[in-house]
Formats: sequence, C-alpha cells, structure tokens
Amino acid sequence: MGEFELIRQYFQPLAAKAMTDQLVLGPGDDCAIQCIPPGRDLVFSVDTLVEGVHFPLNYSSGYLGWRALAVAISDLAAMGAEPVCFSLALTLPEADPDWLSGFAAGLARASEAFGITLAGGDTTRGPLTISIQVHGTVDQGKAIRRSGARPGDLICVTGPLGSAGAALAFLEDADPDPIRQAVLARYHFPEPRLALGQQLVGKASAAIDISDGLLADLQHILDASAVGAELDARKIPMMPELEQLQGDQSLSLALTAGDDYELCIAIAPDVLAGLTSDLRARLTVVGQIRMTPGLSLVGADLAQVRPGFDHFGRLV
Amino acid sequence: MGEFELIRQYFQPLAAKAMTDQLVLGPGDDCAIQCIPPGRDLVFSVDTLVEGVHFPLNYSSGYLGWRALAVAISDLAAMGAEPVCFSLALTLPEADPDWLSGFAAGLARASEAFGITLAGGDTTRGPLTISIQVHGTVDQGKAIRRSGARPGDLICVTGPLGSAGAALAFLEDADPDPIRQAVLARYHFPEPRLALGQQLVGKASAAIDISDGLLADLQHILDASAVGAELDARKIPMMPELEQLQGDQSLSLALTAGDDYELCIAIAPDVLAGLTSDLRARLTVVGQIRMTPGLSLVGADLAQVRPGFDHFGRLV
Repeated sequence: MGEFELIRQYFQPLAAKAMTDQLVLGPGDDCAIQCIPPGRDLVFSVDTLVEGVHFPLNYSSGYLGWRALAVAISDLAAMGAEPVCFSLALTLPEADPDWLSGFAAGLARASEAFGITLAGGDTTRGPLTISIQVHGTVDQGKAIRRSGARPGDLICVTGPLGSAGAALAFLEDADPDPIRQAVLARYHFPEPRLALGQQLVGKASAAIDISDGLLADLQHILDASAVGAELDARKIPMMPELEQLQGDQSLSLALTAGDDYELCIAIAPDVLAGLTSDLRARLTVVGQIRMTPGLSLVGADLAQVRPGFDHFGRLV
Repeated sequence: MGEFELIRQYFQPLAAKAMTDQLVLGPGDDCAIQCIPPGRDLVFSVDTLVEGVHFPLNYSSGYLGWRALAVAISDLAAMGAEPVCFSLALTLPEADPDWLSGFAAGLARASEAFGITLAGGDTTRGPLTISIQVHGTVDQGKAIRRSGARPGDLICVTGPLGSAGAALAFLEDADPDPIRQAVLARYHFPEPRLALGQQLVGKASAAIDISDGLLADLQHILDASAVGAELDARKIPMMPELEQLQGDQSLSLALTAGDDYELCIAIAPDVLAGLTSDLRARLTVVGQIRMTPGLSLVGADLAQVRPGFDHFGRLV
C-alpha cells in the first residue's frame, strides 16, 4: 500500500459521515459539492498553521488536530455562522502512523464537537503545514461584520483573555501543576464561540475573534468601522490561574496575546440590555466605541503594555 | 510598515475587484461571504503546491502564480463548474518584494483569464507553500462526477498529453530552443478546460482532470464507477514537439506524467455523436469503458510503460 492509501485510511472515518443535506458530495471526486439552503449565504475562511511558527516542533498531533480545526471555526463564530463542512490541506514530511492517528483523532473530536464535516482536501509532502478552510451558512445579509461598530456601542468579550498566550512559555512541560494545566487547556483546546456568535446575529453591530490579542483585533474593528474606542483595563476578564502565574504581566498578556479565540463584539447599549440574562452573563463589557479614531486605555498605562510582535496574518 | 502590511499591498489589486453579485464580501473580515444563485450548487476544491516537491526551488514566481491558480481551477473544469472566487493560503519564508510582485502578477493574470476573484486568505511565515481553494457553481445535481462511467462509454481526452511531464527535465534551462519552449509552455501555463467542461454538463457521464497521468487518473474514474477500460495507445494525442524530443519515451510520458491538466471524460457514443462539430473536434477518443474491471492497453505493451511514482495526493 502506498503512502497515499495509508493516509486516506486515517481520514476515512471523518469522510464516512460526509453526506448530509448540505454536503452533497464529500471527499473522493475532483471537487466537493455543497448545497446552500435558500435564504442563506455561504461564509468561509482559511487558516494555516505552520510547525515551528504557530505550534512547537513535536507538538502533540492530537492537540493539533483539535486546535487547527477549532481555530478555523472561530472565524465562523465571529460572523454568527453555523458550521457545515471543512477542507484540509495537509503537508507532511512523512506518513508517520502515530502522528496521523493522533491528528485524525483530534480532528474527529473537534469535528464532532462543533458539528462540521470533512468535505475534502489535499495531502502533499513537505514541511508540516496545515491549512483548514471552514464553510458555514448564515441568513442572507445577516453575517456580523467588522465594519458595523458605531459610537456609543459597548465593547464586550466572551471570556477570559491572556491564558493561551501565557501557556506558550510552558507548552512542553511534561508534568505541569494544576494551575498550569488550567492555563494550558486554553491553548490546547480552544472553543470557538459558535452558539454565542449565532445568538448575536442581528444584535451585535460588529464582531471579530481574538486571535492576535484584544488590542490588535479590536483595532481591526475600529479600522473597518472608522471609529475609535476606550478600553477599561480593570474590566478585562482573566483567569485567576493566569494572575497567580503571571502577576503584573497578566494584563499585558490579556491585551496583546492571541490564541484565546474568544470573540470581541460591539453592541448598542439598549440592545445589550434587551438580551436574555443567560446571554448577557456570557458577555463582559470592557469598553466603549468612540467617534474619535484611536484606541485609549483607562485603568492602566498603555505604554507599559508589551506590544504584540509583528507577524504575518490574514490576507488583504 | 510591517511585513503583513507589505504583503497586503501586493494582493490589493486582486481584492479591489472582489465585490460581485456572487462574492458579497471579499478579503478583510473574519470570513468572506458568497451568495449562491438559486438552483446552483457550490463546488470547491483545494490544491497545495510545495516548493521543491511540486515546483523547483527558485521557480519563477510569475509562472507559479498562474500555475497555482490554474491547477486548482482545473478541478472546477472537471466538474463542469463556472468559477466564482478563490482563497489563498500562502506560506512564505520572507516578504521578498520581487518574489511577491511576480507572484501577485501571475495570479492576477490567471484570475482575469479564468474569471475568478480573490475572496480571502491567510499569509503565514514558513517554508514556501501555496494552497488555493477554488469555488465555482453548477446547476443543482448536474456536476460531472467520476462515478458515472458506464460500459460502452467512449473515453476522450481534451488535448495532448505528456508535454508538461517532459518539461520537468529542462524547467530551468536559461535559453531553451523553440521546441523545448513549446513543451515548457505546457508546464508553465496550464489552461484549465473550463468552457469544455461546462459544455459537457449533462453529456459526459464522468470526468476527471489529468494531474497525475492518464493511467492513474482514468483509474480513479474506473474505481469510482466500478468498471474497466481499454485504452488504445495509438490514439493518445501528443505534441509533435514532444515526440521530437522524447522519441520512444513519449507514450510513456503521455500515459503516466501528470501536470498537463487536460480532462479525461467518459461519454456515451450516441451522445458524443450528437455534440456540435466544434465540441467534437476538441475531444480525442482514446478508448472505451468495459464492464470487466481493469485497465488494458492495446497498441503498446503496458509493461513497457514506466509506472508513475507513488506520491501523496488528493485526500480520501
């Protein structure tokens, strides 16, 4: 059996479930075929993870399978979309059965957890690189964009920030203590905020997922919406475990470290007040949109906040 | 200006044309948004090219831009689909302006030639790897699949084979003679058979694009359709320039070398006879589908044909 056949076997279980009402044709032909329900738009996004850049050398392939898919799905959550299917472009130096079975299992777990099906892909030989494109649908014209924030909107986040960034320092600890374990879980198992995003359709005026740090990602909303914002450093939610580990550095991580994959949204105050209490309880107000461009921080000195590093990122 | 900003500039011209009736939201948000016309299915496919595996080190970035997009679009042609948009996952070791401007220009030329728009993407740092996912549409339920070939169908190809495979031996020639130039063009500038594929919707019973060699790709049709086939070696179309360069080896290349991106189709004889003469003139009958599984070759000794190498390939 060739390597190609071998690799197919690992992904067969994910492909077996491929046929749904919406995924008309799954892996195995020149193209996959998706049927978009009437009145819905297709939304899609691609994310690439490169070994040694986005995850460490020898990172657990099981964690990686989950993480690669979850990270991609997070972009669907930010638009308020329902996931349908994904394609996988996997570049591998070799067909290592241990690595492949771990990766496929992690991918399968995330696929099941988030209700998304493998539609197809391409496997090539080369340095370990994973590109996942996710497809979802949303009611026509209703996707939440970055460009809708208006002066007066409140800025909310959907969960604690900074932990995944802190975890980078001890990702490879063999036997982490419980505090570190709690922080590590935020890196290994990001949970895209799909349900929240969907519930915010027609309510949030803008949204983005926090992959590059709150300051950087909020800035994308401000740029797209041609507005400014004031953030209150004292309101940024953080895990107690992060503060135990990082002390004074926690805020800096919460503001500039990515990888948490919470959502940052803008929402009019009266709309926020009208949400169900369950939904409101999931949102932490951390600031407000201003008419004047620029991002200011109260409750901390922005100059003391370590800036995010310059990196490649989303295209155009 | 950061590298990220720099890279954006090169792709901005492709993105500027992003808004169409079907591409509702192009690059710059968490997701792109596509509106599928009523009565149409979405078809999509991803292809990855890795430096040193699918193209040589230091391969012209202008050629690469064209080739990467054309190769991906070829899968749309094989389904009979009309292209709409594509996403680009580009992994680069560095932001080299010369490389980027050449690549973006090649991509822009192919994008214009084939009527497909940049919808979004992801740029990351790492070993040079290009994943392109193409989106097209086709009338609901009408996409040409691999699985529809029936005993008695004629097997046709849409153009000469083997040239792109032969070109691999002298891709880096600084000053090729006109014969080699003609053969090289087949590698550098593949032309996906979009119009042909679309005209064959509802007529061809099966189709595939020839990326891995006629024998290997026809075998995919046979496997998917649970049939066999007889090929006539004397009918395989080849460029005269290929035969001048390769002599006795030409047939072997035509049967086993990929990279030409012609289509291989199965079509019932009466349907073929009923096609317009223009369309018939574009198809060369090279064999017939048989009920008995297996692929046999007349007019040449299959054992003398150099087998294609084992490689990674399409997922599942």
